Amino acid sequence: METITVALGDRSYPIHIGPGLLDDSNLYGASARQMLIVTNEIVAPLYLDRVVAALRGRQVETLVLPDGERYKTLATFGTVLDRLIDANFHRDSCLVALGGGVVGDLTGYAAASFQRGVDFVQIPTTLLAQVDSSVGGKTAVNHPRAKNMIGAFHQPIAVLADTDTLKTLPTRELSAGLAEVIKYGVIVDAPFFAWLEQHMDALRALDGKALAHAIRRSCEIKAQIVAEDEREHGRRALLNLGHTFGHALEALGNYERWLHGEAVAIGTVLAARTSQALGWIDAATCERIEKLLALAGLPTHASGIDPDALLAGMRGDKKADKAGLKLILIKALGDATVTRAPPEATLRAVLAEQLA
Amino acid sequence: METITVALGDRSYPIHIGPGLLDDSNLYGASARQMLIVTNEIVAPLYLDRVVAALRGRQVETLVLPDGERYKTLATFGTVLDRLIDANFHRDSCLVALGGGVVGDLTGYAAASFQRGVDFVQIPTTLLAQVDSSVGGKTAVNHPRAKNMIGAFHQPIAVLADTDTLKTLPTRELSAGLAEVIKYGVIVDAPFFAWLEQHMDALRALDGKALAHAIRRSCEIKAQIVAEDEREHGRRALLNLGHTFGHALEALGNYERWLHGEAVAIGTVLAARTSQALGWIDAATCERIEKLLALAGLPTHASGIDPDALLAGMRGDKKADKAGLKLILIKALGDATVTRAPPEATLRAVLAEQLA
Repeated sequence: METITVALGDRSYPIHIGPGLLDDSNLYGASARQMLIVTNEIVAPLYLDRVVAALRGRQVETLVLPDGERYKTLATFGTVLDRLIDANFHRDSCLVALGGGVVGDLTGYAAASFQRGVDFVQIPTTLLAQVDSSVGGKTAVNHPRAKNMIGAFHQPIAVLADTDTLKTLPTRELSAGLAEVIKYGVIVDAPFFAWLEQHMDALRALDGKALAHAIRRSCEIKAQIVAEDEREHGRRALLNLGHTFGHALEALGNYERWLHGEAVAIGTVLAARTSQALGWIDAATCERIEKLLALAGLPTHASGIDPDALLAGMRGDKKADKAGLKLILIKALGDATVTRAPPEATLRAVLAEQLA
Repeated sequence: METITVALGDRSYPIHIGPGLLDDSNLYGASARQMLIVTNEIVAPLYLDRVVAALRGRQVETLVLPDGERYKTLATFGTVLDRLIDANFHRDSCLVALGGGVVGDLTGYAAASFQRGVDFVQIPTTLLAQVDSSVGGKTAVNHPRAKNMIGAFHQPIAVLADTDTLKTLPTRELSAGLAEVIKYGVIVDAPFFAWLEQHMDALRALDGKALAHAIRRSCEIKAQIVAEDEREHGRRALLNLGHTFGHALEALGNYERWLHGEAVAIGTVLAARTSQALGWIDAATCERIEKLLALAGLPTHASGIDPDALLAGMRGDKKADKAGLKLILIKALGDATVTRAPPEATLRAVLAEQLA
């Protein structure tokens, strides 16, 4: 097991990475007497009993939600709160999010809001959640017209990234998680990007050592950026590489055509090609990025998408503000930058070419 | 106009107190281009046009909610968010809460949650909101089975306590606000308590100078306590004098029999009598407190309440935790203290006597 720390003063917390962590009650870091484990119908049969067993000796309640992004709503959030109140949970209770990003974001927002904030522990069971959503304290539910519009910054007290849980993850979801892993290389760490080029096959074959390294390095990078800029006033925005494009694509695909990571992969290519059009990187760098994404089993192009519709969607993204569109673009491999209001004509030309 | 500052580092904000503040656009302290004013059907006809006029030159939207505590729900919270998203509000928007505690708590929680936190300005139009709920950053909505169970700590960027708005406040609500004003004297400021004994008639007659002093001193006391303990890990709990009793009474009265301040007044007497039963204060001090509350037009006793039901309600209060009931009791006038698990027999005896 490896442990890294997200350094946020009195809100600092450990991320434990390795096999078989679920069963180690010491890792949960919770002194609370009352614990509610929130999970979903896919994950519950696989891992819920083990988490319940690890928490033996306390009042442990469980809540199994239906699976899917479409349940990441204010209504489901309400059912978590109903359960906490029905079970007479007090202020010193703790929630445990056992599942992927939907369970983590929803449970985290419930923990942020119940009695104005109680503890929670993240047990991410997807690669995407292990390297991204369970690190950094962003919690939220979706609004019918926009993702993650309703939420809070609320840090967990511990994250248990049990690499064994990836054995039950569908291949397509493993690839979606790899999109975010590759992102870390592109934005700040060219050597990590090169390591990924060498080890992509091992990662897709679930090699334990390779997985642990990729998760650890991803979490380290995210943890460091979050520690510098918890509330995304500046540098944290780098983590959104490919996401403004990606969120708009997801919406145009009704959140069914692409998984989040797949949309981010396509968005990363669009960001790279925009950077190239601005003369910041060369075609060869774009092609390396595209090739690694493809090697990870990810789509790199979207067909049948109207550039105007995509641009309109991007303008409605919550990263936009009065200064106009804010994009993360690439100065060099391992060196991304926040770009305000990139030239409209350049953007349109790139979209017209890439979405053809 | 007087201005005091709630000192919370980079979340510090001013509270402006005085007549005619609504119209002064400089006091709003908001640079946001998009503003949503949330108010209710009672307050809107009185003051909404003036606030809209003060904010001229920006995108100003208004949302008029039905009046009453029963609309302080997750559903109404959802309608505020719907409105923000329908109007295409961005991250640099600002909400304005124009009304009493319900509007303030609900709007504050919406501001805390929209895009994980945007600015908001409080314009409290009741005495209760001016001296209590608009200071300190507690925002929330009610759960059907418990008040303020779902919320966030989120500080406003400015509070405008316009004393002119109290001219349109029903007498009963003015008295309810005075319960919290008296509370500040009881918990930490005996000279202020004595000043209130001298000036209660002037306050009830809406004497501008007396009102401004009472509001200023109340806000100063609350601001200082909040600055010391923003998230209520210790001293901030003193502000809950009478509230654990009061919340249980409100629930037993179906939130109809008593206003919040009225229940707090009765709860303050119960806290005083419990303190007396423990030998901490004498009967004369209890009587001074009761007399001042009565002079403010407040009830000091509840009849027809079952002590067991009240105790059960108190145990479900969110101030309770695994260490059992936590009550604020009185060591001397102006010196309250947090008391863990007071003797059950003493509490029962006091309730049996006082609720007879």
